Formats: sequence, structure tokens, C-alpha cells
Amino acid sequence: MPRTKTFDEDQVLQAAMMLFWRNGYEATSIGALEREMKLVRTSIYNAYGDKRNLFRQALARYFEIELSQFSDAIEQAETARDALRGVFKEVIRLHFSPSHPGGCLMVLSLLESEQHDAETRRSLQSVVSHLKEAITTRLERGVEEGELPADCPCAIIGGQATAIVNGMIVIAKADISREELEALIDASVSMLLPE
Amino acid sequence: MPRTKTFDEDQVLQAAMMLFWRNGYEATSIGALEREMKLVRTSIYNAYGDKRNLFRQALARYFEIELSQFSDAIEQAETARDALRGVFKEVIRLHFSPSHPGGCLMVLSLLESEQHDAETRRSLQSVVSHLKEAITTRLERGVEEGELPADCPCAIIGGQATAIVNGMIVIAKADISREELEALIDASVSMLLPE
Repeated sequence: MPRTKTFDEDQVLQAAMMLFWRNGYEATSIGALEREMKLVRTSIYNAYGDKRNLFRQALARYFEIELSQFSDAIEQAETARDALRGVFKEVIRLHFSPSHPGGCLMVLSLLESEQHDAETRRSLQSVVSHLKEAITTRLERGVEEGELPADCPCAIIGGQATAIVNGMIVIAKADISREELEALIDASVSMLLPE
Repeated sequence: MPRTKTFDEDQVLQAAMMLFWRNGYEATSIGALEREMKLVRTSIYNAYGDKRNLFRQALARYFEIELSQFSDAIEQAETARDALRGVFKEVIRLHFSPSHPGGCLMVLSLLESEQHDAETRRSLQSVVSHLKEAITTRLERGVEEGELPADCPCAIIGGQATAIVNGMIVIAKADISREELEALIDASVSMLLPE
């Protein structure tokens, strides 16, 4: 007879994701996971494998639930300029949402890369290169549509915007105010895409 | 009779600093510290207090040995433009030095802020605000000296440069190449201080 899971998988994986995001990988103990996931460790191991496997699934959920909103902000914006502003604003949403611990699980995990295996490191790295590509592609569309000048250095601006997004996450963790981050967004959009 | 330390304090604290920088705070065990510092735990505790106290001293050493070079790059540059380029280049030195584990202990610790106490968090935050002030002050001197135009928005550029420095550290951990980071520096100096 197949094992029936008697818990809400979304809710349980969400709890693990939030704990890793708050504390980091090694600082998250199995005991703390049991408490937050409201499961005993044998149930956690049966459902998710070991801690490393659970982390991989929590990170996949983070990409799907949180970081996908960065791609959405880029793709759904009507103009390249709005796409750039939108991706910066996602940092503010991510950091300041009352239910979030602040910062970003992806950036934390990149900095904690020694705590992770090669597979996880590769998936973290690919998020950064995908962000750069998504911004660059959207800017190139802005050139094609005549919104941006033909000589707009899209790939360079894509790289700069990616650095600024990640830098905003770090300085947000240094308790820079929301107002200061919003001013940084305005200045960065004007600087990267001068009118 | 005063206790005589029979080890090279600089060397021992350096070993602790490198271990925290590589692994993060919680992921650094006392056993690993014993091996790297080549001291038994009672000697570590006698000389540095508990792990939290040892970390504080390792972080102070990091500020003094590594991050001071960011301030030096700003203060010793002959022009504001060179100061900006110099502070960005410090990220490359920090990340790629063969003896370094990559990334930055300060950024790692900011992201791992839940693992630290309020005093450590404050000292990490103040590093970020001091970097911004140091860049801003140097740009203001550039305005006074006629290098930069009178309407140069020094504080805004100081904030943007601080975001880019921290963002460069994150993307360096995502395995962006040295060449790509150097291109990012060129583009960022030209963008922040157009000629």
C-alpha cells in the first residue's frame, strides 16, 4: 500500500524554507526543523530525504515562489524602463514583507557556498546569470521597439542592474531604510537608462 | 605571575578569521577552530573567551586587515574618479587573492545576521554606512577641487557605489569571471561619473 502523506506538503516545505532563510543552512538544526515543520524527524526523512535534500527542495520552492516574481516583474512590465524599476522594487518587497525574515535565501546561500554541494552551488549561480539575461533580453526588446536608443549597451546595463539588485539585498540587511532604498532605485533607473 | 601566551597571536587569530570567512559563524565548529588555530579549546577559551568573543575579535581583525584597504583606496587616490575605481577594484583583490576563500566575511555575516548578537550586527551595519560616507566625502572633495561639477549628487553616487561594491561581492560568489567584473567596474565608473 502506498504511504499516504498526512500533512500539507506546501505548508511544511514553506516552514522549512523560512527557517533556512532566517538562519542559514548549517545553523538550521533538525530539532528546529521538527518544531517549525511540526513533524518528527523520521517523517521529515521519509518525505524529503536528509537535510541536504530537504534544503534543495526548500530552495526550489524559494525560486518558484519568491524569485519567480523578479522574472514576472521583468516580463510583465510594459516598458524596459518599468521592467528595470520593477526588478529593483522586488528587492523591497522581498526584504520588507512582514512575513519574511529579510534579505534573500539565494544571496545568503551564495555567501554560505562552502556549506553547500556542487549541485546547489550551480543552481545558485544560474539564478544570477538568468537574472542578468532576463534584464538584458528585456532591454534589447526596448531597443527593437524604439523605446531605447539603438546603441544602448543592453548586456552591460543588465550586468550593472544585476549587481545593484544583489547589492540592495546586502545593504537592506545593513538596515538601510526603505526610503533610502527607494531613492537608490530612482537614481539607478535614471543613471542606467537616461532619458 | 601573569600568564604568558606561548603562541603567535596574529597568526592564531588570522587562522580563526579565515575559517569563519570560509564557513560562516555557526558552521565553524570549535573542533575545526582547534585544528586551524593549532590550540586546544581551553587555550582558545583562555585567550579569546567563548566562540562569540573569538568571532568578534576575528571580525575586528578582518576590518583592520582587509576592509581598511577599501578606505585606503579611497583616501589615497589622487582623483575622485580613481577613488571610485579603486574601491571597486578592492572587491577583485578581496575575492580573487589566492589565500582568500572568496566573497567577504562582512557580507556573509550581514546575511547571517540571525546568527549574531546585536553588538555584532551594529558593527556590521556601521561598516556599510562608513563605506558610503567615505565615498561621498571623497566625491565632495572632487567637487571642491573642481574635478567634478558643482551639481554632482555626491551622496546619491556614494549610495549607488556602495550598492555596487556589495553586489559585486555577491556576483563574484556566483562565479562571475574576473574579466566580467572588470568590465562592470569600467562601466560603473563611467556611468556614475560621466566625463
